[in-house]
Amino acid sequence: MKIENIDVNSYPGSEKVYIDGKLHPIRVAMRRVNLTPTVKIIDGEKMTRKNDPVYVYDTSGVYTDPDVSVDINAGLPRLREEWLERREDLEQLSHITSDYGRMREADKSLDPIRFAHRYAPRRAAEGRNITQMALARQGIITPEMEYVAIRENNNAEALGIKSHITPEFVRDEVAAGRAVIPANINHPEAEPMIIGKNFLVKLNTNIGNSALSSGIEEEVSKAVWSCYWGGDTLMDLSTGDNIHETREWIIRNCPVPVGTVPVYQALEKVDGKVEDLTWEIYRDTLIEQAEQGVDYFTIHAGALRAHADMVQERLTGIVSRGGSIMTRWAVIHDQENFLYTHFDEICEILARYDVAVSLGDGLRPGSIHDANDRSQFLELDVLGELTEIAWRHNVQVLIEGPGHVPMHKIRENMERQIDKCHEAPFYTLGPLTTDIAPGYDHITSAIGAAQIAWMGTAMICYVTPKEHLALPNLEDVRNGVITYKIAAHAADIAKGHPGAQLRDDAMSKARFEFRWKDQFNLSLDPARARQYYVESHKDDD
Amino acid sequence: MKIENIDVNSYPGSEKVYIDGKLHPIRVAMRRVNLTPTVKIIDGEKMTRKNDPVYVYDTSGVYTDPDVSVDINAGLPRLREEWLERREDLEQLSHITSDYGRMREADKSLDPIRFAHRYAPRRAAEGRNITQMALARQGIITPEMEYVAIRENNNAEALGIKSHITPEFVRDEVAAGRAVIPANINHPEAEPMIIGKNFLVKLNTNIGNSALSSGIEEEVSKAVWSCYWGGDTLMDLSTGDNIHETREWIIRNCPVPVGTVPVYQALEKVDGKVEDLTWEIYRDTLIEQAEQGVDYFTIHAGALRAHADMVQERLTGIVSRGGSIMTRWAVIHDQENFLYTHFDEICEILARYDVAVSLGDGLRPGSIHDANDRSQFLELDVLGELTEIAWRHNVQVLIEGPGHVPMHKIRENMERQIDKCHEAPFYTLGPLTTDIAPGYDHITSAIGAAQIAWMGTAMICYVTPKEHLALPNLEDVRNGVITYKIAAHAADIAKGHPGAQLRDDAMSKARFEFRWKDQFNLSLDPARARQYYVESHKDDD
Repeated sequence: MKIENIDVNSYPGSEKVYIDGKLHPIRVAMRRVNLTPTVKIIDGEKMTRKNDPVYVYDTSGVYTDPDVSVDINAGLPRLREEWLERREDLEQLSHITSDYGRMREADKSLDPIRFAHRYAPRRAAEGRNITQMALARQGIITPEMEYVAIRENNNAEALGIKSHITPEFVRDEVAAGRAVIPANINHPEAEPMIIGKNFLVKLNTNIGNSALSSGIEEEVSKAVWSCYWGGDTLMDLSTGDNIHETREWIIRNCPVPVGTVPVYQALEKVDGKVEDLTWEIYRDTLIEQAEQGVDYFTIHAGALRAHADMVQERLTGIVSRGGSIMTRWAVIHDQENFLYTHFDEICEILARYDVAVSLGDGLRPGSIHDANDRSQFLELDVLGELTEIAWRHNVQVLIEGPGHVPMHKIRENMERQIDKCHEAPFYTLGPLTTDIAPGYDHITSAIGAAQIAWMGTAMICYVTPKEHLALPNLEDVRNGVITYKIAAHAADIAKGHPGAQLRDDAMSKARFEFRWKDQFNLSLDPARARQYYVESHKDDD
Repeated sequence: MKIENIDVNSYPGSEKVYIDGKLHPIRVAMRRVNLTPTVKIIDGEKMTRKNDPVYVYDTSGVYTDPDVSVDINAGLPRLREEWLERREDLEQLSHITSDYGRMREADKSLDPIRFAHRYAPRRAAEGRNITQMALARQGIITPEMEYVAIRENNNAEALGIKSHITPEFVRDEVAAGRAVIPANINHPEAEPMIIGKNFLVKLNTNIGNSALSSGIEEEVSKAVWSCYWGGDTLMDLSTGDNIHETREWIIRNCPVPVGTVPVYQALEKVDGKVEDLTWEIYRDTLIEQAEQGVDYFTIHAGALRAHADMVQERLTGIVSRGGSIMTRWAVIHDQENFLYTHFDEICEILARYDVAVSLGDGLRPGSIHDANDRSQFLELDVLGELTEIAWRHNVQVLIEGPGHVPMHKIRENMERQIDKCHEAPFYTLGPLTTDIAPGYDHITSAIGAAQIAWMGTAMICYVTPKEHLALPNLEDVRNGVITYKIAAHAADIAKGHPGAQLRDDAMSKARFEFRWKDQFNLSLDPARARQYYVESHKDDD
């Protein structure tokens, strides 16, 4: 297998650089955009003045490092392997422990599509609290914490810009639950990153095959592509065949944390029959995926049985797939949602691998009509309770949010979330601020995403132009990611993130001085900027 | 000449409808989107329930009325001709009165590119105050006022939705200067529309050839195209040859108000030499354009000589072309900007034709770095003074605004504008909320436009994906207009415009019921939505 669409040289004028840690033997990757000098003619004399390079946050991993040759069949270099080896609170298992995982492993017919390099999973040693949150609470600054502290600053301090983001600050935010470092001990390929309102706004991208469409190669390709353009985390929402094997390929080749919705796979295991779902099947799925290296699970534990009746008053009912599955299960069995009743056990499993939980908003509004209604806000209260439970287990928590919300109702979402969920990071889909523009929902939602991110949402989930119409192709992924980079960056500037405006100012200076190449190279999508310019100027001279 | 790109049937499921006035013999055009019924199977029985049609604001003029055949060479039907004929405060001139206009008329070499149907211009009868503002102040409800009152409501009242927008309300807002109806008495082809914070948010599109690029046919085509997608007003920013003739073609075929920046043409008349500009040439240009039917002029009368020094402290100096021309003129001549010193005379001319003035922001920031600086805000104070002068002449006023503004600095722009400019409608370009995404500046700016429109900006000027890189083609115009329709509509919903959310709710219901055709037909860009859907589903069955 081969990734065709990534060119290591496709950020022209840029270099991959690494900044060393001071507490730990780590190297933090960034991209440095080198600029041409300013040239002026003063009194007939040509004067040139150097322009400082601009350091930008880089999510593309070693795919854009010319010194590293990536072999998709071998997976990415295991960046955190040494850090993990040094730890005494982990144990290396001799084999995977989920029933399903073992069944797939034994199935010879899967050999042709199997990722060849297998790694025995790690797990917490008996009785040890190993999550980033547990360590932070013990006052420990982990390599991951130092890594993200350096990463967040984009070398701004070297330019004399004061930053509040130190390794100690990271530790304190993680300990308080205000920030999450999704870093499953079985996904050492990922570069550590942090999600929290006092850090750069992050964006998540969704990929995933469906029964009808894409195969493994295409999914890996999309995953790398979305990181290349700026995706900070990646959710694999696959629902078709070979989910287990596809996921292995993605995780082994993904430089950013990977999230999933485990109930999707659990449902595949019972042939899509909601009534046949059981806690045991779900539990085994959690272990299966945790041992592969999934960094965070979306779990719809707040969608309760009572909600099933309440949503009758809505225009668009329940649009979250996970929320719909779990409320249906509850009604069919006349029991409470098993994710809610087994939440303590869930947390015990997650804590063993340091998988973060992203508490799903199964009752998110599917239209601006249903925004901020009682179903939505009652679920948010439940997510607040579950947050406290997760934190008791040292499990890191994200809270998922809507969805479809008109502008004047956005602030209430943010304020209630902070209040009810004790400042756990908010992670929202958009929100879309109007429903009348299918084909342009990356834009209807970026308008809302920029606002809610400015107010304190830590991560925004991208929306592509195909939302509500079709699955995105590569070009849609690119458009979705860039649109959300814009929303996130606009929020970073408004929030006053240290040095966030440096790149804008460098761009504006280049624009004022007609340094076209620097303008292209500084832009979020250099290829697009250059293309538009060249197309229109090709007839000029 | 022919407009190739507009198909009267391209809004499928829609009908052109007209609502009659009660005070005046007027017919107000709207588009009605007819919906398919909801079909449910209940107890084995097929139940259908009708879905009410949705009325939407329509800027496309008779181009989308199958009962009207438009001949570009003859121009649009003159909707307001009868209204104007009935008035006793106007005089019909026997010929045009500008020197330049007469010179072009006498030039036989222009015959091949001349718009054939000439109309003698109208002007205020001696001593009469004829503007919509003058009439409103006298307590008169004009046909234009009743027209916009009906138009703003999209038939919502027939559905039992209360609206504050009555003809009386329109009159009061225009009298107070809080709203503008740009309606030159020499542009009777345009359908009346209103710009004010208590009305639907409007969007302006810019077109214009440059010396290098497009010809008359392409410009007319772009003008109609932008109205077709939803442009509420149109600025013709042409700078090349034959500006006078191009403008005539555009105005005669344009169903929305047309604006210009007269100093662009004045500068062409002196071969681009700023030092040769004179008040006399500019004055003649105003009369020339007013008699052709331009509905509003952007006039950079607030860019003063003192600004030329002040902008040294900026990163990107003066980026407004008009602002740059006028400050340069002032420095060269060591005199104050002649648009400022002659502002009373300018207003006397504008008042005679009911041309509105759009006070240009010559000192708008060209980068988020320069946003909200003292140059910008000192100019805003001057625009406030000029507003009072214009109002003394009964000239309707818009105030132009930035530009490039990070999110946290947007509110100050709106609040100061309201305070300093006495609630005259604000008309902003974007603002762009970050500078790092050339190729996507329709999006960087829609994020800002939606916010400032929600806060009270009455009209937003679109930005296309090619901003800062190249001139837009037809597809860029489409993307720019739809993006700004989204921003405007999101703001209308947030502001609580009566019935604004009806279309969203109809869309959401269609979505929940999988009525795909209705979803396409209700969307801002039905063709795009359908295309994305069909492309991805063509292999399905």
